Amino acid sequence: MTQIHIGSTLVYDVRQRTIFLLKIAAGSTPHQQVNDESLTTDPIVNIEPCQVDLEGNRLHRLVVEPCRLKIQYQATANLAPDLERPRNVDESQAAQMPPEVLTYMNPSRYCESDVLARFAYEEFGQLPSGFTRVQTICDWVYEHLEYTPGSTTATTTAADVLLQRTGVCRDYAHLAISLCRGIGVPSRYVSGYAVNLQPPDYHGFMEAFLDGQWYLFDPTRLASTLGLVRIGVGRDAADVAFCTLTGSAMLEEKCVWANLGDDQTNLANNPAVSTA
Amino acid sequence: MTQIHIGSTLVYDVRQRTIFLLKIAAGSTPHQQVNDESLTTDPIVNIEPCQVDLEGNRLHRLVVEPCRLKIQYQATANLAPDLERPRNVDESQAAQMPPEVLTYMNPSRYCESDVLARFAYEEFGQLPSGFTRVQTICDWVYEHLEYTPGSTTATTTAADVLLQRTGVCRDYAHLAISLCRGIGVPSRYVSGYAVNLQPPDYHGFMEAFLDGQWYLFDPTRLASTLGLVRIGVGRDAADVAFCTLTGSAMLEEKCVWANLGDDQTNLANNPAVSTA
Amino acid sequence: MTQIHIGSTLVYDVRQRTIFLLKIAAGSTPHQQVNDESLTTDPIVNIEPCQVDLEGNRLHRLVVEPCRLKIQYQATANLAPDLERPRNVDESQAAQMPPEVLTYMNPSRYCESDVLARFAYEEFGQLPSGFTRVQTICDWVYEHLEYTPGSTTATTTAADVLLQRTGVCRDYAHLAISLCRGIGVPSRYVSGYAVNLQPPDYHGFMEAFLDGQWYLFDPTRLASTLGLVRIGVGRDAADVAFCTLTGSAMLEEKCVWANLGDDQTNLANNPAVSTA
Amino acid sequence: MTQIHIGSTLVYDVRQRTIFLLKIAAGSTPHQQVNDESLTTDPIVNIEPCQVDLEGNRLHRLVVEPCRLKIQYQATANLAPDLERPRNVDESQAAQMPPEVLTYMNPSRYCESDVLARFAYEEFGQLPSGFTRVQTICDWVYEHLEYTPGSTTATTTAADVLLQRTGVCRDYAHLAISLCRGIGVPSRYVSGYAVNLQPPDYHGFMEAFLDGQWYLFDPTRLASTLGLVRIGVGRDAADVAFCTLTGSAMLEEKCVWANLGDDQTNLANNPAVSTA
Repeated sequence: MTQIHIGSTLVYDVRQRTIFLLKIAAGSTPHQQVNDESLTTDPIVNIEPCQVDLEGNRLHRLVVEPCRLKIQYQATANLAPDLERPRNVDESQAAQMPPEVLTYMNPSRYCESDVLARFAYEEFGQLPSGFTRVQTICDWVYEHLEYTPGSTTATTTAADVLLQRTGVCRDYAHLAISLCRGIGVPSRYVSGYAVNLQPPDYHGFMEAFLDGQWYLFDPTRLASTLGLVRIGVGRDAADVAFCTLTGSAMLEEKCVWANLGDDQTNLANNPAVSTA
Repeated sequence: MTQIHIGSTLVYDVRQRTIFLLKIAAGSTPHQQVNDESLTTDPIVNIEPCQVDLEGNRLHRLVVEPCRLKIQYQATANLAPDLERPRNVDESQAAQMPPEVLTYMNPSRYCESDVLARFAYEEFGQLPSGFTRVQTICDWVYEHLEYTPGSTTATTTAADVLLQRTGVCRDYAHLAISLCRGIGVPSRYVSGYAVNLQPPDYHGFMEAFLDGQWYLFDPTRLASTLGLVRIGVGRDAADVAFCTLTGSAMLEEKCVWANLGDDQTNLANNPAVSTA
Repeated sequence: MTQIHIGSTLVYDVRQRTIFLLKIAAGSTPHQQVNDESLTTDPIVNIEPCQVDLEGNRLHRLVVEPCRLKIQYQATANLAPDLERPRNVDESQAAQMPPEVLTYMNPSRYCESDVLARFAYEEFGQLPSGFTRVQTICDWVYEHLEYTPGSTTATTTAADVLLQRTGVCRDYAHLAISLCRGIGVPSRYVSGYAVNLQPPDYHGFMEAFLDGQWYLFDPTRLASTLGLVRIGVGRDAADVAFCTLTGSAMLEEKCVWANLGDDQTNLANNPAVSTA
Repeated sequence: MTQIHIGSTLVYDVRQRTIFLLKIAAGSTPHQQVNDESLTTDPIVNIEPCQVDLEGNRLHRLVVEPCRLKIQYQATANLAPDLERPRNVDESQAAQMPPEVLTYMNPSRYCESDVLARFAYEEFGQLPSGFTRVQTICDWVYEHLEYTPGSTTATTTAADVLLQRTGVCRDYAHLAISLCRGIGVPSRYVSGYAVNLQPPDYHGFMEAFLDGQWYLFDPTRLASTLGLVRIGVGRDAADVAFCTLTGSAMLEEKCVWANLGDDQTNLANNPAVSTA
């Protein structure tokens, strides 16, 4: 059991009536319990909590009149990941996958797995199937990209990244997801909080569906898989943007943190964890 | 109440063990009842019916050994659309949309609504909101594209179509969806059967969420909205491909039909219908 | 005759042996004389002047060892444009165009006129041919784009700009060029110095070939066509980058200016000029 | 000296007055002499021969009224390539390249060498420079692409091909050109006739500038470099389309051939040749 204190503060200059869709609250899953949670705003506005889908994604909706809006979220997450001996974990067969998993085989906005399928098959198609093959894909992504803030934009896709070879965490995740789907492994995007992330920010990582479960990977190697607190999952970053605005507001401050509980020491470095 | 007989026959040359995911069966919705349905194969193989998601999408999974496989589907659909006086239908406000609808505001594989948002806003942002604005978008798509079989491929997106100005039904739908999302109207792809479609095939059309309901549109004007039998809905065509294969099989024949019941006469031409 | 004093200062931190290809010197054409020209560096390095092609483009090549390199260029340009009554200027027929002009009908890196041809034809194909049609294209570009520094990158193309509707001078020029080529009018990119440009920088504009001559246009409307001093022409910005580096050097300062000669007053606003 | 008989027959259904720009005639270079040349049409129309540029590219312009037009070209080419011991050929330094060669370092319509530069540098940047490095690039292209007629279109670029891994001769050439430019080797597209090409057609190959000369490569390995008769060179296929039409005409027949002279036997397989 790992205890992690998480939180974020967002300050917006709201210039006209604006609807905020926030995806910053940690999700509840069999492997992740959320306690001592608070979400407050200054000035006080009504916060509507929404359950988006079957994956446990949460959403908070705010309708805000012009003001300087401060949003503060904090919680304690208790993680109980299943630790596995990953080399024994095989891929699931398409004939046995649960139907709700099949959607994560489809291409999506930032993960054109259809376009990258031949590349994926050529590079990784002949490797033994299973956890180690997904790990090989994540290693390949780590080794072939250069982590370069500012090198990509909100419209950059996995195909762009594969060519230009630079990006940030969301780009790493998009490319790894696309390559997994390209060889027939369902894969999805995870947004969350990460212990010790430098510089501190929301983080993007990915999950692959293997042997009946979702397994967590961070192709950037910027955080331990044991220190990742999930906010939500989706096909790609389009589904889990931390804030979607309708109206007019400018982000002025963003502060994100994730710290191990007091009685915790260091995290093992990236064991295989099944978390969903 | 409209009664429509639908069906399709697919013949595949299956060259190695192949998993088929079929999305060819009509969905059951409050506005669409399915009767006298059969799905058979020759040779006989096990057919696993799956319920994919909360939208009522169905999926049939088959695991097939090498053979010449004939798949036959037929059913009778009874449609009971709500007919509306559309000019009174307003758009929903983002502050009131049900959470499960919000996902249809996001960009997707073939509908890069983020990229097209400025274009959409410039062309349609100043029009009065509501049903007529969505109809104006569909009219614009109809008038600016040329229906040209073979002019697009499986990777063609709405942005491509907006530039090249040619496409087929899925391209028309993708562009209309992207433009709707671009101005803040949730919109989604619908696959289905269409009465009197020439040449006969599965059809692709779209729905926009207005005033608390989904409304159906066919930007190609190739079919009446009263004669559309839905198979499934999704963000775009990536979600509702009629057949997804894992293995090796070649489509050799495809025959699709949709006919009005015996006691039916002609369909009114494209009234506004709410169907979901 | 218009006299314009131009110049630019560039400072680079050269970190390893680097080859500089500079395109910052004004070109000599029948309509543009260059006097009192100097190009100097500190520290002094050998400057190799090159004549690139038949268009009069010039290039200066420097091989520089690690240092802090200051490059200073200045000159006086005397412009003698042919002023025309543009409404009488017709387009050239493809049957009569000089062969060397035909290359400016081809698509190029940033001007995918092949992709945009249907759009161009649909929007502008039915207008009366001639100078006014090209002016209509430039007006359309001006009216539909928003001048937004930072909204585009070195890889942004005319198709990107047509969708996203933002850009800077090079993007405006690329889009106008592509639309002209799309309707069969040869068009090319011009880099240069512009009087009164705010903020001061090198400028990008375009020329269209009409009735046997090249005519100058600035779709950004940021400068008068009478105050544009040409550096070079090319198919698009790929051909006339002000500096191409092989090695490693960082641009630390860039200062560009273009001022009317002492005895000059104001420039008429954008008359039609033929300059090549 | 290799003697090759070449020719092509094109039949068009010309539906309205159409201007043809033909690039089907063999070029004259120091290494390629053209004899016994004829270009005829039925019905007879005026043929205007044009010299396009300094590279020796030729162009024939025809203005044709509605008819069924048959174009017949034939000639005998005498090739005198310089055979080299390629392993000794080094790359040219940017500091010494002739100015007119520098343009072939720029990205172009189908060769986005700017986008592919990091990929090129990562894959090939550390190899010893020279002829063998260019050969390695061509080998890589040959090994990683699958020659698949119909898999690409007129708008497919090198970046597309790098991802999708299929294409035809022009796609192979575009990718090899882009990768060469990406590591700083000037490279250009060559169109021509190829002995023993199957199926017979015009062919597309490429040249790289090494040690002061252009060297010929065929990344498809479909033809011997000794049996390639050049029509023209350009930045990419956009510059050397065999026919560009303004008007309306449909290609009904195309027949292309290239045969060794009577006294010739077999061609050595792909020696290094310098031809320009």
